[in-house]
Parts: sequence; structure tokens; C-alpha cells
Amino acid sequence: MIRGGKTQRLVNRIENVALFNVQGTGVPGITGVIFAAVENSGANVILISKASSEHTVCFAVHEKDVTAVAEALDSGNHQDLPAGGLTKVQIILSCSILKIGQKMEHSTGVGVSLLSALEKDNINVLAIAQGYSEYDISVVLKKEDCTRALSAFYSRCFLSKTIMAMGIVGPGLIGATLLDQLRDQAAILKEDFNIDLRVMGITSSRTMVLCDQGIDLSGWRELQKETGEMADLEKFTQHLHENQLSSNMVMVDCTADSNVASRYYDWLHKGIHVITPNKKANSGPLDKYLKLRSLQRQSHTHYFYEATVGAGLPIISTLRGLQETGDKILRIEGVFSGTLSYIFNSFKGERAFSEVVAEAKQAGYTEPDPRDDLSGTDVARKVIILARESGLKLELADIPVQSLVPEPLQTSSTAEQFMQQLPQFDQDMARERHDAETVGEVLRYVGVVDAVNNKGSVELRRYKKDHPFARLSGSDNIISFTATRYKDHPLIIIGPGAGAQVTAGGVFSDILRLASYLGAPS
Amino acid sequence: MIRGGKTQRLVNRIENVALFNVQGTGVPGITGVIFAAVENSGANVILISKASSEHTVCFAVHEKDVTAVAEALDSGNHQDLPAGGLTKVQIILSCSILKIGQKMEHSTGVGVSLLSALEKDNINVLAIAQGYSEYDISVVLKKEDCTRALSAFYSRCFLSKTIMAMGIVGPGLIGATLLDQLRDQAAILKEDFNIDLRVMGITSSRTMVLCDQGIDLSGWRELQKETGEMADLEKFTQHLHENQLSSNMVMVDCTADSNVASRYYDWLHKGIHVITPNKKANSGPLDKYLKLRSLQRQSHTHYFYEATVGAGLPIISTLRGLQETGDKILRIEGVFSGTLSYIFNSFKGERAFSEVVAEAKQAGYTEPDPRDDLSGTDVARKVIILARESGLKLELADIPVQSLVPEPLQTSSTAEQFMQQLPQFDQDMARERHDAETVGEVLRYVGVVDAVNNKGSVELRRYKKDHPFARLSGSDNIISFTATRYKDHPLIIIGPGAGAQVTAGGVFSDILRLASYLGAPS
Repeated sequence: MIRGGKTQRLVNRIENVALFNVQGTGVPGITGVIFAAVENSGANVILISKASSEHTVCFAVHEKDVTAVAEALDSGNHQDLPAGGLTKVQIILSCSILKIGQKMEHSTGVGVSLLSALEKDNINVLAIAQGYSEYDISVVLKKEDCTRALSAFYSRCFLSKTIMAMGIVGPGLIGATLLDQLRDQAAILKEDFNIDLRVMGITSSRTMVLCDQGIDLSGWRELQKETGEMADLEKFTQHLHENQLSSNMVMVDCTADSNVASRYYDWLHKGIHVITPNKKANSGPLDKYLKLRSLQRQSHTHYFYEATVGAGLPIISTLRGLQETGDKILRIEGVFSGTLSYIFNSFKGERAFSEVVAEAKQAGYTEPDPRDDLSGTDVARKVIILARESGLKLELADIPVQSLVPEPLQTSSTAEQFMQQLPQFDQDMARERHDAETVGEVLRYVGVVDAVNNKGSVELRRYKKDHPFARLSGSDNIISFTATRYKDHPLIIIGPGAGAQVTAGGVFSDILRLASYLGAPS
Repeated sequence: MIRGGKTQRLVNRIENVALFNVQGTGVPGITGVIFAAVENSGANVILISKASSEHTVCFAVHEKDVTAVAEALDSGNHQDLPAGGLTKVQIILSCSILKIGQKMEHSTGVGVSLLSALEKDNINVLAIAQGYSEYDISVVLKKEDCTRALSAFYSRCFLSKTIMAMGIVGPGLIGATLLDQLRDQAAILKEDFNIDLRVMGITSSRTMVLCDQGIDLSGWRELQKETGEMADLEKFTQHLHENQLSSNMVMVDCTADSNVASRYYDWLHKGIHVITPNKKANSGPLDKYLKLRSLQRQSHTHYFYEATVGAGLPIISTLRGLQETGDKILRIEGVFSGTLSYIFNSFKGERAFSEVVAEAKQAGYTEPDPRDDLSGTDVARKVIILARESGLKLELADIPVQSLVPEPLQTSSTAEQFMQQLPQFDQDMARERHDAETVGEVLRYVGVVDAVNNKGSVELRRYKKDHPFARLSGSDNIISFTATRYKDHPLIIIGPGAGAQVTAGGVFSDILRLASYLGAPS
């Protein structure tokens, strides 16, 4: 019987065991005979241990088998047992066996730590057996000593760590911020959470750095500059996969590159977990997405992407929590673009639409070419991600997207030309805004997942001035979940949905969620 | 070397192994001699297996030891080895060992499923060894067969489940709703998430039901009525602790009882995880709280209480996520009481304060005695929980609470008397509201955690009409997190923070988080 919750993975406990301690000059030559005898008696040998002395072998059986085994070892009843071969057969009743579980795989010196813990508390160890690794060590104790032994041991192996070997792909704005956050938090994670995060490699599209023990993050930039070799994702993957530090391997894709996303399948297949803010995989072709999900399940790996929607805001996790607990998602509606949030929050009539866009561009809120924001494609990707997360089987093409780029300007060659020509269309947007205002409404560019009717959309909508969407400020995102349990009053999350710090923070929290799933203490 | 992320807990893999297959009529009698010889050669025996034939024993060593062991077994070099005793010593090079990890503890027939998977794919098993339980089974394969073997095995043990043995304390409004949610979701959790939730017992303050295999939740109410025995938390705990189904034991306290909360320590100490919406433990004496937390860490158990604040809203988890990833909490401010939210959202000047309170009472939003809400004690408990979660070491008494119960009425004997006398004080509240309105502000009853100045408070505050707190409707909660990464624009969560469905939902999501932490697939 096993005791303890997560502790089961540390120590398993077998109750009601009897220990046989067999001594005799004959022993070395007749181990086989002894066990044949024991087995013939119908007993199940739980544990075997040859003590330091060549002439002693001890083994454990269930207490119910004691009599049968004792008789079998009586030389009188067993012709193969040479008289005098067994000078002593000692039987210790009401013992328990403590056996280290696999969870200890990556903490060194477990055996040592267990034994010294027992020694330290003067707990008498009756027998020790060890499998093919020190992590398989088993000890036989008197039943009454077990509780004391366990607490002594736990206070020791509280030092045990969950080591995670990570590969960081794309040390750009988000990736670099993540690496700095990891650097700043590493010590606390080790001390308070027993999580040992090791960055085994960093690769950009051009150069990569590999390290067997984990890169010193205080100087990762210099390292990349000075010792960076030519980037090779194949080699990078192999390096992580063959690391000797940990079987907890995770690839963190901080790019927006669909080529990198196309590697997730191979990574998961290799047992490498994947964490990313990259929207490409989840908003790509449906069949590929479904294939990726089912592989993820079958390969017992994890695939987290909280930061693909709302950056660090708890959107995906909240959505999952609702559904897994049986709540039914009816509708998800929100302002998913920080850029378009800022633009419409600022578009109050004082200035023309094109002026607001220009202002946003100068403030660095938009892409180099604002059309990449105004086209609505990025919002559509977020909608499809949430739709699929809600169980809808939709393609990106199934989401009608209202582009804010005037038809004639979609082809203008440069961003500058576009910005120059945009004022020509200010009237249209001014009219829309005015029509809304006359009925006490404002314009918001929103994405919608309509789970009831199995569809999604991206469009400019009107909201009453007292609607939460109307009160939005700056470049905040707002996401509203309507579900069976949140029907009349939706669950709403508001906050900055873009920016390196919060996005990296979202990726980081996925990394720590993974650590917890892999057994780190909470 | 171990491969695979979470899969490591399923199967460990040892590379570069050589298998010795020793045959001979002499074998049964000289097993001890053989191993003495092998050990003397300095080799480390990884695995021993006696094949069906009495005359065969095989064992595995690291390839580097092959020569030494081969020489040691050459009867020419070893006087104890009877000539002809070993008719055959076969050496198979470049083997691998696959060993089932502890993770399989609770899925039955692992050995069977592994072997039949291998058989099904015609993978040649060179040797099988089994420890004290079928979950310890090891197989020796040719290196090149391993990958095929693993995928064959994984596709099988994809059927493996995370069984959680649960005890439900307090089948009141929230507990009953939780049990119904568990009932409705059980099938999906088994099928889609491989989580097998078993309610081993349900206890109210009077009667309890215990079951060894898990209670059929479709009829738990009848069961409680008809077969319920006298409640006994001691016995209830023991029943869960000694369950034979799973070592994943979790006690779910759905009461508001401090006596039940005082048991958490014992439960965690026994390795039983604790999940609760009960605020008593976390808002009780600081030293007890800290003791509980440190025990929880040392005993490698989990203690979740998301539903203590904001019911099903992701408050605690969001707070943790921010802090663990290195964000620094500066301030938490919110409307934490659905009752007081409703009262002040409705207190717009048309009706007197006492009328609004009466209305709320009739609508069932308040406690039987509305003073329990108006006193602010409940809000203070939530503030202290969030404060401690943010690392502040505060006592409940350290939180100044502005009670909305007029001094003279704090002693009126009955709720009815209180309601009758409340109108006498309407003027004071009316004045406050009017003063606020004249400067375009509204009144909100809020809790504040000021992490910068290490203090908290519960009070009536004013907010500008365009502040998110001013836009609150119904009985919604609103919680605003200001942190280093969310400084100018806080992270805000809005939604119903009370009610059986959402509260039970919050408890339920804690249960599933626990399942994930214990190894359930995501």
C-alpha cells in the first residue's frame, strides 16, 4: 500500500512484511537453492539483499507467508539444504519497506540522503536493497519507525529539484525579455520552488549557442555574439534531446515564424514539451492543428500557448478551466489588438482617423506598416485560436474579417504611400463614429467566437457608452467569456495585451505551469 | 538515459547494456557463485532474471564491463565454477532496458499491456525482470527495437488514468453543487483527460457515507439519507487515508467551519491534499497559517483555495502566476463582496440606503442577518488571504475595517430589529453619496492590499464615474492587480464572485489542477 499524495512518487511503502535473515558458511553456494525453496513454498519474494557479509542473504516476504517459508528453510524439510549450511535463520516480523520512487530521478545522491537522514534520526535500518540505479533503493524498517523515517527523509529531499532543460528559439524582443526574466528569477525558483531551469541552448535565425550544463544567463547576449555558431534547428533539437541533465525537455518558441511552428510535431514526438507565444501553429490548417493536439496527448507531452492571446492575461487557462469543469462556453467577445484598442479608444472626434493612426504609428504601437494591424488578420488568428480551444472546428478562412484598410489602399506599394493616402478615407470612418455617437455608442474593433452558432467574426462594432468595452483605455485588451455559469454576467478580463514584459511573463508562467505538471512542489 | 517528458515517469530507458544468458545443469546450485564472480570482476549487475528454465539465469551489465565479466565466468579462471557447470554463456551486445516507472502505479495490468504491446508489434523481448510489483517490470530489448517498442507501449498506456480518491466535507449548497458538477463531468474527464475522480466519502456535520470503490454520484443524496452513518471526521479521514484505490488522496472542505479547517494540518501531514473555498484557515492566526504552508511544502502535498476569493474567478492563480514569474505585486484593490457590490451598484439616489439593503435581503443576496455582510468581516478575510498570498505577514486584526453597521445597531438583538432601525441612519449614507456625486464620483465598498506599505484595509471609497469600479453592475466582483509589469494599466478581473455554481466551479478547477500536478495529461 502506498502512502502520501505526491509523496507516492518519492517513497512507496509496503506494509506487513517479514524479513528473513539467513546466515551460514554454505550460503554463498546455495542462494539459488534457498530461493527455489522459498518459491516452492508459494511465497512471493518482495526484496532480496545480500548484506556485506558473503555468508548472509536476507529477503522479505509478506507476513502471511512466514510459516510456509520458515518450514521450507528447515533443512529437515529440504534435502537440498545441507545440514549446517544455514547456521542461522532469523525472522523479523511487522516490518515495512520504503522504496524510492521514480520521481527522484534527477536529484543526485538520493540513496545517500535517505540513509543519512535515517542515520541522523537513529532509525535502525534492517535491510537495504538497490536496483539498477540509486534511485531504486529500498530499505526495510520496523513498522513503528516508518513515520519518523519518512518525515526525516522528506525534510532532506525537500532539497530535491525539478530540473527543466530548455531550448529558447528566437531571442528577439520577447525571447530576450524572457531570458532576462529567467535570469532574475532563477535563484528564487531554485530556493522557494525547487525548480531548476536550465537553458541548454539559444538560437536565432542566424546563430546559436549550445551548452551542456545550462547557459549562464547573466552573459547570454555576449555569449551569442562571441561564441555563437551557425544556427541549425536540427542540431539544436538534437542537443536538447540528448542532454544528460534532465528528461524534462521543453522548447520555447519566441518567434512568429511558421517554419519553427512546423517543428512542434517533431518536438512533441521526441517527448519535448512546447511552449510558445507564436500563433502560427494554432491558427494554421485545422487538420494539422488536430494532428498536433492528438500527438501531444499520445506522447504524454505538454503544449502551452497562453501568450498567443492577451499576452500575460490568463485567457487560455481561464477558458480551459471553465470547460474542463463542465461549464459550456456560449460566446467569447473581445478587443484582442492593443493597437486597434488604442486607435479606437483615442478616436473620439477631435482628430481624424488617419491622424490617430499616424499618432499610434509614431508611438510605436503599430507594425512598421499599419495595414498589418488594420487588416484584422492578427485578430482573426486569435479568434481562431479561441474558437478551436472552445471545441469549434473552424479554419482561418471561415472567419469573416472586416478590414479597416480601404479597398483602394490595400495595394499601395509602401507604408508611407498608405499613410499619405489614408486621409482621403477619413470621412467614411468619421461618419461611422458620428452615427454611433448620436445614439450614445462608440466604435470598437472586436473579435467574436459564437460557440452557439459555431462561427466567428472580426469586425467593427458599436457598444453603448456604459458597456465595459466602451470604458477601455490605452492599448488594453478586454476579453468577455459568456458561459452557462457566467450567462447574465460574463467573466471579463482586462489589461495590457501586448508588450515584451507581459508577453514574456505569459510565456514564463507557462514554463512554471509545466514545472508543476512535471512534479514541482506548489 | 531517460527519454520523453512526462513519459519519463512511465518508462525509463537504460542504454548500452549487454545481456548475459548463462545456461547449465549446474546453474541452480551456483547462482551465488556466478554473481560472486561477476561482482569480483568489478561489474555492476543492472538486472537479474531467472528464465522459466531452472537451468538458465540471465543478467545485464553495462557494455564496458563485458570483457571482465566474460573472463570471470570462464571456468578456467574461476575455481569455484565447476567444469561443465556452465554449458553455455551467451552474450548479447547493444541492448537497452525499458523499465516501467512509478507513474503506472494505479493503472492495472501494466506488465500485461507492455508485453502484449511488444508482442503485437512483433518486438523480440530478450529478458524480463520484475520487482516486488508488476509496476516494476523491466524488459531487455535490442537497442534498435526501443523506439518502436516505446510508441507501441504509449499508444497502449494512453489508457492509463490518474485516479483521485476524494473526500467531500460539507454537502451543503456549494458541496452539493460540486458533487452534481462532478457527476455530470465524470465521463468526459475519464474519456478526454484520463482523470478518474472517485468520491470515497461524503460527510455532513451529522451523517456520512463511506464507499471503498467510489460513490455513485447519481444517487448520493438518497445514499446519504438512507445509508448515512453518524458523522465522524476521524473515521472519515482514516477511510480516505486507507483507501486501496489511489495514493492521490484529496479532502475537499466545502464548509465555512473553522473546526474542519483546523484538520488541514493533520490531513497534509498524512499526505492528503486539501482543496477548499473555506476562508477560515488562511484568514486565521498568522503563525498557524505559516506552519500549515511550510508543512504543505515539506509533505509534498498541495493545498488549493482559489474559490476563497472571487469564487470561480481566476484570482489566486493569477496572483501566483505574476509573482512566481518575478512580477512584483504593488497593490490589489477590489470589490470582493457580491452583496455589497449589489447594494452600492443599486444605491443611486432613487431609494434610501436601507431600502436597497432590504431589497438585497429579499432577493437573497445578503446573509440572514445583513449585518454579517455590512460589518465587512468577510471582505477583511479575503483581503488577508490576498495579502498573505502576496507575501505580507499580517494578522486579520491588522486590517482596519470600516463597518457599515451604525454603531448603535451593532448590538440590536435581531436582524428584524436591525432592519427596522436602519432607516434612522439613511441620512448619513445619503450625504456621503451626494457629496461623492457632486464631484462626479460614486461610492464603492472595497478591500485593499497595499503591498508597498505592507498594509491592508476595508473601507468605503469614492471612484470617478469612468473608473472601472464605477461601472460595476449586479453583484459582480472586480479585482485589480497593480504590479511592476501591470503598473500604468492594471490587470483587472470582473465577474460574479458568489453563487453556488461558480463557487463549486472554482473548487472543481482546483481539483483538476491537482490532477494535472499529479500527472494527468493536459
